[in-house]
Amino acid sequence: MEKVSALQELFFARLEQESLRISQTEPVNLYRPVKYILDIGGKRLRPAMVLLSSELFGGNQEDAMKAALSVEIFHNFTLLHDDIMDNADIRRGRPTVHNQYDTNTAILSGDAMSIHAYEYLLQCETPNIMPVIKLFTRTAIEVCEGQQYDMDFETRIDVTVEEYIEMIRLKTGVLLACCFKTGALLGNASAQDAQLMYDFGINLGLAFQLQDDYLDTYGDVNVFGKRIGGDILCNKKTYLLIQALKNASPELRADLSSWIDKKDFDEEEKIAAVKAIYNKIGVADINQRAIDAYYEQAVACSNALQLAEDKKTILFDLVDAIMKRKK
Amino acid sequence: MEKVSALQELFFARLEQESLRISQTEPVNLYRPVKYILDIGGKRLRPAMVLLSSELFGGNQEDAMKAALSVEIFHNFTLLHDDIMDNADIRRGRPTVHNQYDTNTAILSGDAMSIHAYEYLLQCETPNIMPVIKLFTRTAIEVCEGQQYDMDFETRIDVTVEEYIEMIRLKTGVLLACCFKTGALLGNASAQDAQLMYDFGINLGLAFQLQDDYLDTYGDVNVFGKRIGGDILCNKKTYLLIQALKNASPELRADLSSWIDKKDFDEEEKIAAVKAIYNKIGVADINQRAIDAYYEQAVACSNALQLAEDKKTILFDLVDAIMKRKK
Repeated sequence: MEKVSALQELFFARLEQESLRISQTEPVNLYRPVKYILDIGGKRLRPAMVLLSSELFGGNQEDAMKAALSVEIFHNFTLLHDDIMDNADIRRGRPTVHNQYDTNTAILSGDAMSIHAYEYLLQCETPNIMPVIKLFTRTAIEVCEGQQYDMDFETRIDVTVEEYIEMIRLKTGVLLACCFKTGALLGNASAQDAQLMYDFGINLGLAFQLQDDYLDTYGDVNVFGKRIGGDILCNKKTYLLIQALKNASPELRADLSSWIDKKDFDEEEKIAAVKAIYNKIGVADINQRAIDAYYEQAVACSNALQLAEDKKTILFDLVDAIMKRKK
Repeated sequence: MEKVSALQELFFARLEQESLRISQTEPVNLYRPVKYILDIGGKRLRPAMVLLSSELFGGNQEDAMKAALSVEIFHNFTLLHDDIMDNADIRRGRPTVHNQYDTNTAILSGDAMSIHAYEYLLQCETPNIMPVIKLFTRTAIEVCEGQQYDMDFETRIDVTVEEYIEMIRLKTGVLLACCFKTGALLGNASAQDAQLMYDFGINLGLAFQLQDDYLDTYGDVNVFGKRIGGDILCNKKTYLLIQALKNASPELRADLSSWIDKKDFDEEEKIAAVKAIYNKIGVADINQRAIDAYYEQAVACSNALQLAEDKKTILFDLVDAIMKRKK
């Protein structure tokens, strides 16, 4: 992960510059919230993925930086609008934008961010700019579609495993895939390698999201940084819950359903009870097997690339780090 | 206006097809509201401007149609999000999207529309696609900035004429300018003609908005289609109000200010009183002189174009129709 950490550092420094510049643009009431959410932070994994992929294929570093900024600003735009829709007050320990400012500000600043993402991307000087912009556009639409499915699932109890995987592919996978493929396109990779990087990103994204689902229920609160059991409390249709409902005995399913339907409950009691049901069904193992399968597919994609072995090692390191993460 | 009407008809037919196709796309909860707002209607002036300008310069008609769809979808995205921000319940006699569905739906469907606008634009096959996309992106950012200034002005009483003109240039002018310049770019116009079409659009947009301000206070309710005096009731910083505050005698300014500050009032009484103050100051004339000046500038731009006189006549007809409109 040394390589990735170095790229994250490089990106941090540039983002800080850009975010300051944006916040000084008029009208400040539109742009100060943009700096605010960019400053809230995050692991900056997506921009690092663009930079890494571009470097592996020999792309121009300044083009890659512009694309990385574009992706990070787009990702933060989705977080900003998602927070309004989820009525979330806190993000990473700080008030969300609509909470710190107001909802109108959060809507409009988010809108401006989604277009600024294009403005950064359009600064790339690569001859591949059209495929890059088309990929970004298709990806952005799919992310919106994924968010809609996620909202639709809130009021459904019959979500299938396949539907769930498709939802997280759209909501999480395609943006990671876009990062890796964009880097490949900037480096003028072959069509086959560009597609392999895309598929690598999808599989990594799916493994990443399933790991997220696992950590929300089984993580260590001191490491994870968020409350454990939040998904259980709001009956979120995670991979764990969907597999539990699918694999439960009639008795356990009835038990689980009654917890889902309950309006009044002690929060810790519900978390413990649902977790006990999960443990009897063995959903953590089912989840881990799915993660392993996506992991294997991601590795297979990187193995098939027309790249020197030492470059592939960097990709394997990235996958390993993401798989082993505890937060 | 025959030419423009014909292009509007052509666009209506195509939009109906596209809007049906969009509404049948999954997830339907994301895309049905898109059809809903597109069906609410409007004069479809912006797409007609793209089609007209492209035709004048000999652009490909299918490219122009894609750009026209892009602009219309973008414009409706801004209406959709503006309605949330303005807390507006009704648009053209029908419930607004957040009223018909809910706010989350309105936010996310709007987000998807702004990106679908890019997807349509990216389908243009013109070699000028990069300047077209860059122009659209800059325009979209400026429209957001204009909306922010408009919101900022709500809580200010010291808005200057210059600030107001800059706000409506951003909120209304640049999108019209973008329509005309996009058509010119699709027709491979010279850089000078493309810029003249842009400036033509700005001036037309400013005249259009000032006409809107006038009609909101002085229009005929049976023709205008909305309540007369709405801007007065909510102390909207229109050209009329800003000029009134600027040109009033100390006595009239005090009178006007007291109406602005009043919390409890009879609505018809306030409209009549403010209108009487406007009449004493003569703001309708001041407004008309500004409209005439922008009109003259628009005509000067079209006169300077390297186009046959019969083609310029079509542009003059368009300007005349917009200037004489009563709704």
